[in-house]
Amino acid sequence: MHKQTLQYHATPEKPDAVYARKLQEVIGGQYGEITVAMQYSFQAWNAHIPGKYRDLLFSTAAEEFGHVEMLATMVAQLLEKAPLGITEDALQDDPTVAAVIGGTDVQEAIAAGAGARPVDSNGNPWNAGYVTASGNLLADFTSNINAEMQGRIQVARLYHMTDDHGVRDLLSFLLARDTHHQNQWLAAAQELQESGLEEVPVPSNFPQSKEHQEVSYQAINFSDGEEMASGPWASGPAPDGIGEFTYVPVPPEGVPMPPPTRPDARFYGTTDMPNVMEKAAGTVQDKLNKE
Amino acid sequence: MHKQTLQYHATPEKPDAVYARKLQEVIGGQYGEITVAMQYSFQAWNAHIPGKYRDLLFSTAAEEFGHVEMLATMVAQLLEKAPLGITEDALQDDPTVAAVIGGTDVQEAIAAGAGARPVDSNGNPWNAGYVTASGNLLADFTSNINAEMQGRIQVARLYHMTDDHGVRDLLSFLLARDTHHQNQWLAAAQELQESGLEEVPVPSNFPQSKEHQEVSYQAINFSDGEEMASGPWASGPAPDGIGEFTYVPVPPEGVPMPPPTRPDARFYGTTDMPNVMEKAAGTVQDKLNKE
Amino acid sequence: MHKQTLQYHATPEKPDAVYARKLQEVIGGQYGEITVAMQYSFQAWNAHIPGKYRDLLFSTAAEEFGHVEMLATMVAQLLEKAPLGITEDALQDDPTVAAVIGGTDVQEAIAAGAGARPVDSNGNPWNAGYVTASGNLLADFTSNINAEMQGRIQVARLYHMTDDHGVRDLLSFLLARDTHHQNQWLAAAQELQESGLEEVPVPSNFPQSKEHQEVSYQAINFSDGEEMASGPWASGPAPDGIGEFTYVPVPPEGVPMPPPTRPDARFYGTTDMPNVMEKAAGTVQDKLNKE
Amino acid sequence: MHKQTLQYHATPEKPDAVYARKLQEVIGGQYGEITVAMQYSFQAWNAHIPGKYRDLLFSTAAEEFGHVEMLATMVAQLLEKAPLGITEDALQDDPTVAAVIGGTDVQEAIAAGAGARPVDSNGNPWNAGYVTASGNLLADFTSNINAEMQGRIQVARLYHMTDDHGVRDLLSFLLARDTHHQNQWLAAAQELQESGLEEVPVPSNFPQSKEHQEVSYQAINFSDGEEMASGPWASGPAPDGIGEFTYVPVPPEGVPMPPPTRPDARFYGTTDMPNVMEKAAGTVQDKLNKE
Amino acid sequence: MHKQTLQYHATPEKPDAVYARKLQEVIGGQYGEITVAMQYSFQAWNAHIPGKYRDLLFSTAAEEFGHVEMLATMVAQLLEKAPLGITEDALQDDPTVAAVIGGTDVQEAIAAGAGARPVDSNGNPWNAGYVTASGNLLADFTSNINAEMQGRIQVARLYHMTDDHGVRDLLSFLLARDTHHQNQWLAAAQELQESGLEEVPVPSNFPQSKEHQEVSYQAINFSDGEEMASGPWASGPAPDGIGEFTYVPVPPEGVPMPPPTRPDARFYGTTDMPNVMEKAAGTVQDKLNKE
Amino acid sequence: MHKQTLQYHATPEKPDAVYARKLQEVIGGQYGEITVAMQYSFQAWNAHIPGKYRDLLFSTAAEEFGHVEMLATMVAQLLEKAPLGITEDALQDDPTVAAVIGGTDVQEAIAAGAGARPVDSNGNPWNAGYVTASGNLLADFTSNINAEMQGRIQVARLYHMTDDHGVRDLLSFLLARDTHHQNQWLAAAQELQESGLEEVPVPSNFPQSKEHQEVSYQAINFSDGEEMASGPWASGPAPDGIGEFTYVPVPPEGVPMPPPTRPDARFYGTTDMPNVMEKAAGTVQDKLNKE
Repeated sequence: MHKQTLQYHATPEKPDAVYARKLQEVIGGQYGEITVAMQYSFQAWNAHIPGKYRDLLFSTAAEEFGHVEMLATMVAQLLEKAPLGITEDALQDDPTVAAVIGGTDVQEAIAAGAGARPVDSNGNPWNAGYVTASGNLLADFTSNINAEMQGRIQVARLYHMTDDHGVRDLLSFLLARDTHHQNQWLAAAQELQESGLEEVPVPSNFPQSKEHQEVSYQAINFSDGEEMASGPWASGPAPDGIGEFTYVPVPPEGVPMPPPTRPDARFYGTTDMPNVMEKAAGTVQDKLNKE
Repeated sequence: MHKQTLQYHATPEKPDAVYARKLQEVIGGQYGEITVAMQYSFQAWNAHIPGKYRDLLFSTAAEEFGHVEMLATMVAQLLEKAPLGITEDALQDDPTVAAVIGGTDVQEAIAAGAGARPVDSNGNPWNAGYVTASGNLLADFTSNINAEMQGRIQVARLYHMTDDHGVRDLLSFLLARDTHHQNQWLAAAQELQESGLEEVPVPSNFPQSKEHQEVSYQAINFSDGEEMASGPWASGPAPDGIGEFTYVPVPPEGVPMPPPTRPDARFYGTTDMPNVMEKAAGTVQDKLNKE
Repeated sequence: MHKQTLQYHATPEKPDAVYARKLQEVIGGQYGEITVAMQYSFQAWNAHIPGKYRDLLFSTAAEEFGHVEMLATMVAQLLEKAPLGITEDALQDDPTVAAVIGGTDVQEAIAAGAGARPVDSNGNPWNAGYVTASGNLLADFTSNINAEMQGRIQVARLYHMTDDHGVRDLLSFLLARDTHHQNQWLAAAQELQESGLEEVPVPSNFPQSKEHQEVSYQAINFSDGEEMASGPWASGPAPDGIGEFTYVPVPPEGVPMPPPTRPDARFYGTTDMPNVMEKAAGTVQDKLNKE
Repeated sequence: MHKQTLQYHATPEKPDAVYARKLQEVIGGQYGEITVAMQYSFQAWNAHIPGKYRDLLFSTAAEEFGHVEMLATMVAQLLEKAPLGITEDALQDDPTVAAVIGGTDVQEAIAAGAGARPVDSNGNPWNAGYVTASGNLLADFTSNINAEMQGRIQVARLYHMTDDHGVRDLLSFLLARDTHHQNQWLAAAQELQESGLEEVPVPSNFPQSKEHQEVSYQAINFSDGEEMASGPWASGPAPDGIGEFTYVPVPPEGVPMPPPTRPDARFYGTTDMPNVMEKAAGTVQDKLNKE
Repeated sequence: MHKQTLQYHATPEKPDAVYARKLQEVIGGQYGEITVAMQYSFQAWNAHIPGKYRDLLFSTAAEEFGHVEMLATMVAQLLEKAPLGITEDALQDDPTVAAVIGGTDVQEAIAAGAGARPVDSNGNPWNAGYVTASGNLLADFTSNINAEMQGRIQVARLYHMTDDHGVRDLLSFLLARDTHHQNQWLAAAQELQESGLEEVPVPSNFPQSKEHQEVSYQAINFSDGEEMASGPWASGPAPDGIGEFTYVPVPPEGVPMPPPTRPDARFYGTTDMPNVMEKAAGTVQDKLNKE
Repeated sequence: MHKQTLQYHATPEKPDAVYARKLQEVIGGQYGEITVAMQYSFQAWNAHIPGKYRDLLFSTAAEEFGHVEMLATMVAQLLEKAPLGITEDALQDDPTVAAVIGGTDVQEAIAAGAGARPVDSNGNPWNAGYVTASGNLLADFTSNINAEMQGRIQVARLYHMTDDHGVRDLLSFLLARDTHHQNQWLAAAQELQESGLEEVPVPSNFPQSKEHQEVSYQAINFSDGEEMASGPWASGPAPDGIGEFTYVPVPPEGVPMPPPTRPDARFYGTTDMPNVMEKAAGTVQDKLNKE
């Protein structure tokens, strides 16, 4: 069900076509509202248990679709007075106009007729490669914590890119909801672990005896930065409560690469000796003759 | 510097062109080794502090590039005997051949000549939309924890899709390194918070007085699942140690949508009254006459 | 608001991992339910008039999100028994298994853990390049008619690709709704024209005096197919009620191409005479010396 | 066969690198000339009847390739004097230069050396996800009507973004051809229906008895906009001449969602009870021991 | 102008839906016919000299569009008898059917109704990121030589993947044309150099005095493979006729990385000391108070 | 192994956020350093012979990753003082600010917090569709020559777009290395041919008797440019040393297109006669009745 109201006010003080482009980032960017709305929806549909976690996913997904709506409404208003035709004379009188020309998303004008679009602030169309829904809730809630963190950082940056009180009012609301959602997914991830449904390392019921445990807690240094040794990941107990970190300052001698492959001659890859190739040509010819 | 050795053995017992396609997921998929190698590299280049965190990023990035190499080497060997030409006769004798035809990545044959490719298991080219590097280390380390969790789940699933001892041996090694990397980023995220460099909610130095604090800890239910109320996100202290969760069973009445926008008539959007449009046409004509 | 019910039953008789992949087309393909849900939403947000057209857009968008949910639920069930590990022995006993291996979307297994994904039947992530929302309602409703036609064709084709009664039952429901939506957008497009809000050719208030009217109704034949002359587009009144079609059997002689461009020498494009290039090199050198 | 003439003049009065970027939309955008050229070509190749419809498709496709050529030629000329090097001094004297810097497509300079590119006005490469060719001519002609409408709207908007007479002259020509092509596809769609080859709803020979006819003409309101009831889609005869619309003000109670799926434990999805997971771990271990 | 004939026969002996998918690679893949047709077209439109080179580009582009047509026609015929509905019974009788199910492009059926599509053999839509047109003819002709080489290799591989005489006959024709086009671009590249229009290194009129000439001919070994020293790139005269190669077995000591950047505090990146961050928080607060 | 040094200095004299965007082209564009680093890596992993060619590929790949690092470091410094918040007052005082607003990559600010990103200068994410690795070394080295030519042209153009001595110093270094790499791949391609491992036309061991040799050396003119006949590709010996070019001024009469296909009626494509369609409807009904 759709309701024709908004969760919060979304009206700017004045038009700002350059800022309209920037706001697209949190509509259709990697960590925009479309991403979280779709991500939480697919996590809910792929959930393997009924109950509180799935209810939480459905609820938050619905809220995020509402945020897309608020932002799209805001963008349309910021664009309402977007300049369409422009002449050199106008430019020479007013550097602001110059900035507007350069800084707007011209597709918002040409394709959408002064409207919002499901794209990011560089005009890249939103795509589902941003979505994570693995069926493993601890991994997916961690993905959600990250998404809400990245999203709140972007909204905070956008807050400083305008001094329009109407826009800032909406961003203040979104920042508060992001605060809640960060906390919410952190609480959910903690609950999952406390109830024993899943633990670190994920997936926790893959039998650790089947992994090469001698390297499961080794902090191997593949760079020449010496301070890597001084972090808590180089010694002491690991966060999973199982292992103990050790530090390996230089990677152990590796194993030799296996010899190069030599596929069927009819793939026409280059091999090493002329007579091999001649033979290959012969082989190809032979096979063709037989066919 | 590149060394022509591998961190671990990467040789299958026998060719398996269908499995070669599946392994592409952890080379060039959303959470494949190219993603983490590139992600950690860009996080290091965008880091704003020298020292242990950046050293850790550089080191882990270098290791992940090595994992791309091990997996690409493995794929080439799995493909070494990939079938190229096939006839109906062969099919009728052998259902295995039928599966191979259907299940392989035909571009590995046609484009790469029986070699690995920087694509996922459905043949989608790897793209940088998978990469996260915000400059905020707590958000980025959380992204890394997620990436290592998703990656380890995928490797665990792939482990069960083959019984080739050579392949499983390599996967056992990668599973162990993923165990370490999950623990490593968890330890790094914890250290960051303990040292006060960054805290939840991220970004922690955005002044909370500027957000709409009345909704910062509200668990608002936008779905009709009743169990959402029973989670730790609906009451009690929030994980950030600042707020206290409250539960709102039904979203508050929203605010009315602002009226629709009415951009310049020369955008040719549809507006509501015929005479408006006639006037618009007149306006367009007037403007054109003036130009 | 989200409700945890479905508009119609969505339960298959039995698992079918190959068909699960095919159903992805109408979830995340060019004309899948995500496309129409997003398209109608953005058309509503970019609408420039309140009232019945915008109400219709909001309502239909909400229904289409519900269809995504029904299909994603169906896919998860079709995948519930998806095979994970497979051996050669199994294959040799059962050609069905061979088909399953070849025909499934392996990312549904590896990435989603036997769940639905926002991708099409070839695994291409859904992207917003599929969405149309121009602000001009007659153009956009025509886009919607097309989307519902293409969608219904695809569902009809999918109907014949399974004999599972549960799946067919859901598709029968979707086919009926597509019937309604085709009719609905046709009715809306007709109403728009009757009320004079917009007419053919779109946009109707661009002054036709400004276009080259001598070619506005010419059916010019750029191929050598002689039957083009016999269609209703080659003679008689045009559907816009303004012009009269005429037929031009061979394209008129064109105008000469303008001469090639010669940009700044520092773009290093190839120009036609050696001495020009020498002069260009000199120019570059001169400019560099000055800088 | 290619002819080195253009259908119409394509020479600007003066260079305009900012406008060159905008013109890219109608070369390589969603509704640019590449899209229609490719779309009509694939529709022709996939046509299942010889004769007038296919002749029309081939002819129009060829014309549209000519339009790509005219626009690419125009873009190259608009870019001929594109600025390459720029200093702060220049900027301080001239705001126009500032606009040019910000508003140009820098890849037209860096990658194409002041030339046209197969991309849209935001630099997104053209991709074949824009193309529709279903084999069903009524659906495809409707897609074509839409494409010509969207295209003409974009050209009309672009017309107002310049006052260069040479550019406007070319756009006037294209607007006229778009007028013809809209009319042409409308005439073709009507002819198809009159000849009984295809009717609404598409596909018309899917037996309607197989769809859930009780909802085939129901205008169900999934939003809270009350004016939806007042449109011609809510009562009266449907445009397909078969059904009669009825209005359903509130969606009927849906059916319960099916229970969540529980795939093989080796997918490592999260399920609901700790002992289930323990059992799952046991199962995985058992299976691994057997392998 | 379009002619409704084909350059060569394109009719298979019998349908083969699996092979139809494979042929898509040379229609809509990275090195398919769409790529070369578009690439040569844009090179012609961006050419900066009239005459033989541009004539050659126009001519070859037109031929390549004809090749797209031949291949699309072939694909439609290979799909003419594509299976649509399939039952388990059928599978159990016939492994060939199993292979067909797994190996076909299901979008050719669901979206195109048994027709060709502008995609590659994995269903990735063709995109313009494959196209090269820099305005520098020596670079672009080298790109063309490469495209014709890659294309001929792919056609040769495809030749061995079928024994249908009709398909092979068409491929034999395309192989011959690729032979010509490889030779043609090689001849053109050589002519360009002989006429002094462009030379190696490209761009040849960038003044070499402005590059760091001490490393312009150094073969520096960044790996530990010892045989790199033995190639003609490590000693002797360079192919550009200007420099002399020298070999550097180990990369020289590099320069230290510059210190990390410290952007504005309002970007919320993580910096190194808690008090810095506190100060940053203060700064942000100060700035917000002022705004 | 990663070393925390750079191959050369990478520090600008002063910040320049607009130029930072332009530099992204050679980081994450079609011919940026990520492309060549990944391309040479995959060519090495897919090589079918050990020794000097593979050593060369590994070495050059490692160097190119170092170039990504140098450029990313440079971009971060150019962005260090990137403007974040901007007011109209500031704009009215300073056109430079206007240019900066319009010309920057806003995602570098919003998403990366003033850091480099793996995208091109229009913000398109890098994708693996740019990579070529066919297993055939002559084709792949030709691809590499092209990549180094295109890359050097782009760096040369970028050189003229700044007068910052620090940036130019880095570009001078990269130009020199591109000079070497062009020469290197040319030398390698020549060596391959001299050693008989591969020759023109590629693939050289496909038996030419199997291609339609009558058109293997025909310069057929598909355009109306008369100067095509005067090039070295129209007469004389072909560069492969095998054939002799001949010139064909007008394409020979082609063969008729095969008749349109008529797939299964359940694909719902449009066919030509009403009664066929009625029969089709009957057929569909019959088949459905049977199912």
